Amino acid sequence: MKLALVGIGKIALDQHVPALTASADWELAATVSRNGTVEGVEAFTRIEDMLAARPDIPVVSLCLPPVPRFAAASAALRAGRHVMLEKPPGASLSEVHELQTIARDQGVTLYTTWHSRQAHAVAAARRWLAGRRIDSGRITWREDVRKWHPGQDWIFAAGGMGVFDPGINALSILTHILPRPVHLTAAELDFPANRDAPIAARLAMTQGISADFDFRQQGPQTWDMEFQTDGGSLALRMGGNLLEIDGQPAGGEDTIMGEYPALYARMAELVRGGASEVDLSPMVLVADAFTLGRRITVEPFEF
Amino acid sequence: MKLALVGIGKIALDQHVPALTASADWELAATVSRNGTVEGVEAFTRIEDMLAARPDIPVVSLCLPPVPRFAAASAALRAGRHVMLEKPPGASLSEVHELQTIARDQGVTLYTTWHSRQAHAVAAARRWLAGRRIDSGRITWREDVRKWHPGQDWIFAAGGMGVFDPGINALSILTHILPRPVHLTAAELDFPANRDAPIAARLAMTQGISADFDFRQQGPQTWDMEFQTDGGSLALRMGGNLLEIDGQPAGGEDTIMGEYPALYARMAELVRGGASEVDLSPMVLVADAFTLGRRITVEPFEF
Repeated sequence: MKLALVGIGKIALDQHVPALTASADWELAATVSRNGTVEGVEAFTRIEDMLAARPDIPVVSLCLPPVPRFAAASAALRAGRHVMLEKPPGASLSEVHELQTIARDQGVTLYTTWHSRQAHAVAAARRWLAGRRIDSGRITWREDVRKWHPGQDWIFAAGGMGVFDPGINALSILTHILPRPVHLTAAELDFPANRDAPIAARLAMTQGISADFDFRQQGPQTWDMEFQTDGGSLALRMGGNLLEIDGQPAGGEDTIMGEYPALYARMAELVRGGASEVDLSPMVLVADAFTLGRRITVEPFEF
Repeated sequence: MKLALVGIGKIALDQHVPALTASADWELAATVSRNGTVEGVEAFTRIEDMLAARPDIPVVSLCLPPVPRFAAASAALRAGRHVMLEKPPGASLSEVHELQTIARDQGVTLYTTWHSRQAHAVAAARRWLAGRRIDSGRITWREDVRKWHPGQDWIFAAGGMGVFDPGINALSILTHILPRPVHLTAAELDFPANRDAPIAARLAMTQGISADFDFRQQGPQTWDMEFQTDGGSLALRMGGNLLEIDGQPAGGEDTIMGEYPALYARMAELVRGGASEVDLSPMVLVADAFTLGRRITVEPFEF
């Protein structure tokens, strides 16, 4: 199936393009981007132009920042195209609800992806936790924003989500592997004095689960989740890629294909089956953290 | 039907008790409150005690502040009671999703009320707007927090929602009367330097709709909504109680019974029919405003 990729930045070139190139399902038929292009692929700068010029492309994949995403997604859906969204699926919950309505009215597929759920050990962790009672859990997601988002000021603008941009990956795994849903009970958000989105956050949830998100980590980076249950302990390290049971490395590398190849395989399945997949639970936890959270002003941040 | 009322404060005494007393459907059989009581009605201070002592009471109505609400609501649902919630239905979206799950598992009614939707002219406004295209809209919701919430510090604590406590009433009307859903595109939130919830907020939404919420209004209070459409203009004034079409007072005082009597009549209907009614769309717009909003620090506020 022909596919157009919208937003040719770091994540598109590092992940989406290689996944598409390696897939038997997909042909990258066009790109839309203000600056980026992919060699040998027809490039547009405006999505409206691509939609008008290429009615032969039935599927559009968006890897834009959250704020401009709604306009592009709704244009593609209204043009009758199936749409796949990078995480988070929008800047607000209400806009994603509206995309759902448009997709339903148009009879096309909408897929809100959560790439971290496709990390190697996530499926095994979910199976192990099923039927166990969580007594406590601790999420530590600490990375260096200068390394992963160099100069990307949009991430600290209002709606850019700040440290929740990586933190929502942890929450997407959490909401996928827990046998019972959690809800947020309290949060603290650290806002740099010169920015409109938080650089660090600490969350308290039910089932004794806490989260520590920080964008200021230098040196080793940490993407860990640890759970104590009535039947032993489980840890997921390296962003869901390594599993430990009771402190020992465990197998369970189910997903051989990697995160983005798995997302595109799922999208092909959804389009062929005429189905949509929209799960907003990670984004609801983020919205709740902003709603409930106590705001703390911290020192200004410059890239 | 026998009903227990939990949280005997200003709103309970001003609205809930008179509505229950006047209703043929209901008997106020118990109260739960740290301080408040209702003359002639058995009073408890802890909901667990009431649930244990009064298995004959099938319905619990909660008018607690949002933060303690979840614990009380989940205790009542788990005890197999039908539950009616004052607005907003919780401090976070994720906790209300969890209440929905518990209610479904228990096979009992959950009703998230929005009292302003029962204001006199709201149904007529909804009928008039149906089929019209909204070109712009302006919500002005300005009231004096010292008058309506004297000394209620919880409203400015994290999770207390601040000016969104009244503002969500406007949003509950908006989401009910519009022919097509809106979503939030931008917001500014004014936080007093000494408080964790905003005292004023300005929202921009799709369909050209804006909102101006302010808790610092002295003198005349304003609860107005004005819409320009392709078929004339409509205004709802006095919190949904007065309707104007093209600048002239219009009829349409459908709801004769008043807001709270209408809510309790609806709850009786839901319990008899074994149904639930949970609409979170006003709360989603609030969560989106907190998520997307630019925070502005303003002068400290004391009651």
